[in-house]
Amino acid sequence: MWREISRFGQKLVHSGLTHAHFGNISVRAGDGFIITTSGSMLDEIDENLLVQLDQCAGDVCPDKKASSETIVHRLIYQQTPARAIMHAHSPYAVALSLLSKEDYLEPRGMESKSFLQRIPLVTGESGSEELAVNLAAALGVYPAAIARGHGTFAVGNALAEAYVGICSVEHACQVHYLCSAGVY
Amino acid sequence: MWREISRFGQKLVHSGLTHAHFGNISVRAGDGFIITTSGSMLDEIDENLLVQLDQCAGDVCPDKKASSETIVHRLIYQQTPARAIMHAHSPYAVALSLLSKEDYLEPRGMESKSFLQRIPLVTGESGSEELAVNLAAALGVYPAAIARGHGTFAVGNALAEAYVGICSVEHACQVHYLCSAGVY
Amino acid sequence: MWREISRFGQKLVHSGLTHAHFGNISVRAGDGFIITTSGSMLDEIDENLLVQLDQCAGDVCPDKKASSETIVHRLIYQQTPARAIMHAHSPYAVALSLLSKEDYLEPRGMESKSFLQRIPLVTGESGSEELAVNLAAALGVYPAAIARGHGTFAVGNALAEAYVGICSVEHACQVHYLCSAGVY
Amino acid sequence: MWREISRFGQKLVHSGLTHAHFGNISVRAGDGFIITTSGSMLDEIDENLLVQLDQCAGDVCPDKKASSETIVHRLIYQQTPARAIMHAHSPYAVALSLLSKEDYLEPRGMESKSFLQRIPLVTGESGSEELAVNLAAALGVYPAAIARGHGTFAVGNALAEAYVGICSVEHACQVHYLCSAGVY
Repeated sequence: MWREISRFGQKLVHSGLTHAHFGNISVRAGDGFIITTSGSMLDEIDENLLVQLDQCAGDVCPDKKASSETIVHRLIYQQTPARAIMHAHSPYAVALSLLSKEDYLEPRGMESKSFLQRIPLVTGESGSEELAVNLAAALGVYPAAIARGHGTFAVGNALAEAYVGICSVEHACQVHYLCSAGVY
Repeated sequence: MWREISRFGQKLVHSGLTHAHFGNISVRAGDGFIITTSGSMLDEIDENLLVQLDQCAGDVCPDKKASSETIVHRLIYQQTPARAIMHAHSPYAVALSLLSKEDYLEPRGMESKSFLQRIPLVTGESGSEELAVNLAAALGVYPAAIARGHGTFAVGNALAEAYVGICSVEHACQVHYLCSAGVY
Repeated sequence: MWREISRFGQKLVHSGLTHAHFGNISVRAGDGFIITTSGSMLDEIDENLLVQLDQCAGDVCPDKKASSETIVHRLIYQQTPARAIMHAHSPYAVALSLLSKEDYLEPRGMESKSFLQRIPLVTGESGSEELAVNLAAALGVYPAAIARGHGTFAVGNALAEAYVGICSVEHACQVHYLCSAGVY
Repeated sequence: MWREISRFGQKLVHSGLTHAHFGNISVRAGDGFIITTSGSMLDEIDENLLVQLDQCAGDVCPDKKASSETIVHRLIYQQTPARAIMHAHSPYAVALSLLSKEDYLEPRGMESKSFLQRIPLVTGESGSEELAVNLAAALGVYPAAIARGHGTFAVGNALAEAYVGICSVEHACQVHYLCSAGVY
């Protein structure tokens, strides 16, 4: 399992979709989920940089702190059938979420339209209850959403599906941006 | 053969020309062609992620589904001498195809002009008969074309030649875009 | 130690944050610091491309010349608790520092706001006393700053922390730029 | 020697400075020079994809064709002390050379100013006598120049120096472009 998380963490960083120690990844496991630790770099994940949440209460692994977005991941797992969640700080997604006044971004490219339908833009501070509630609601309906000024969250039956969501949102946002800024 | 497809699939992804499970690659083989499977990631192709079409009718490999663009590849092989076809969702090509009202994009850079002459912009939904007909016609004349709002298709005598087409179209579209948006 | 410097040098180059032989990295060591040599490429650092400054006066290693920004690194180590310093020529940071008339760039994204607070824009020629003084003052208060028309400097308790600073500044500058240039 | 050419060819492609089979690299050798073959991909150079020009007249290696820019490289070696030459199709350099009406691009960043001073923009079709004459003249004075609508040529005492020139021109052009297009 950790190898899969590591593999997709590397894809996210090598594709320029997130950077440094930003972004996080989790997969549903048993009653809980496994999530990357706070401050871990997604291109360097190994078993030691993951927290299995229902084994990690109290002192069990006192040397590890789960991602600061854990509250968001937990509520998504509670309220949706998602089996994997990814979060990345993709630049075009962040910029468009700050520029747009709409509640949804309507993708212009075919690929994005068919896979994402539309992209909800939700509010809430990083790691806040508000963000968790808004994302859990949005990701119960759509495969991916953008937290305004923050980044993309995507869900799926597996990491590969969530990865498609993250990539499709950034592609849709870059195309949307280029079309909006284009002089024709 | 699969190693060649794998090699160019990795080039496409590592160069940012396509992403996640989008895009597809095929090569003419015997009476038919070998094409990447639906949902396969082009940077992770191996023999199991390819379908040899005239061996794959019915139950022969029931666990494999050919790319959703197979109809497009088949018609191109029927109507042109192409020996290899690539399709990628390059962002500048998609954006320009949405911005432009013309039937052709006229490259401004020397390299693009000499290799591509001009770039047809064709219509048709992803995987549709209309798209197949339009692309087969365009790629009988030009080495590469853009499906509006979708991405680039390129043909060649070998994968390397189709790869040059995909790269040249994105380069031409980025240069065209920068020149159009540039303030001078 | 050199392996850590090498590792982060590769990250900087592979992420497009600096290029060729530009940028430099140092870590506090004993009374002095270890810094990359002048003209070394950050994606190819090994022990031979580092200078340990308090062992390197005069003839000790006459074949090595410390980075041209050594004066800046030294003053930062003298005046701040920084244990690691990175400098990179990131394009959006350089462009915004030339465009902006303000003394600080106010990040718009959550991640950048919380990690960087604000980004000082300081003046001074490359490798000058003026630049050293301005950066030492700015980096005593903020984790990263931009030298106008030159690039980003970031400090931290470790290389990983300085790397987060370099990445966050470029992300903040790209988002800021896209929002400023965006047509909405 | 071929390992050095291969190493820098990979850097050029992996940094996004050129793509597919575009761009070429040469080094002075004896009375002549070694240059990459026509159609070779710079990220895949080995000894078989190089031509040693004064051994390669007539039938000596009839299976190899030197780069189509050979005429340009030859004249630069005849008229300047250059020991290495690189050519890449970098997108911002190409776009700015099409946008600008000036004979020189004045870099705005410190690094570019100090290394390049200014960047000549020269005319001439790819592989033409005119281009060779104009580039040989420009590269006798400056380390790098842009062939309008075509790409960057850089010279140096070694491949590393020419590589710095290629990178610096693209960095300078991207910064220049962002500043010109920026809304402030």
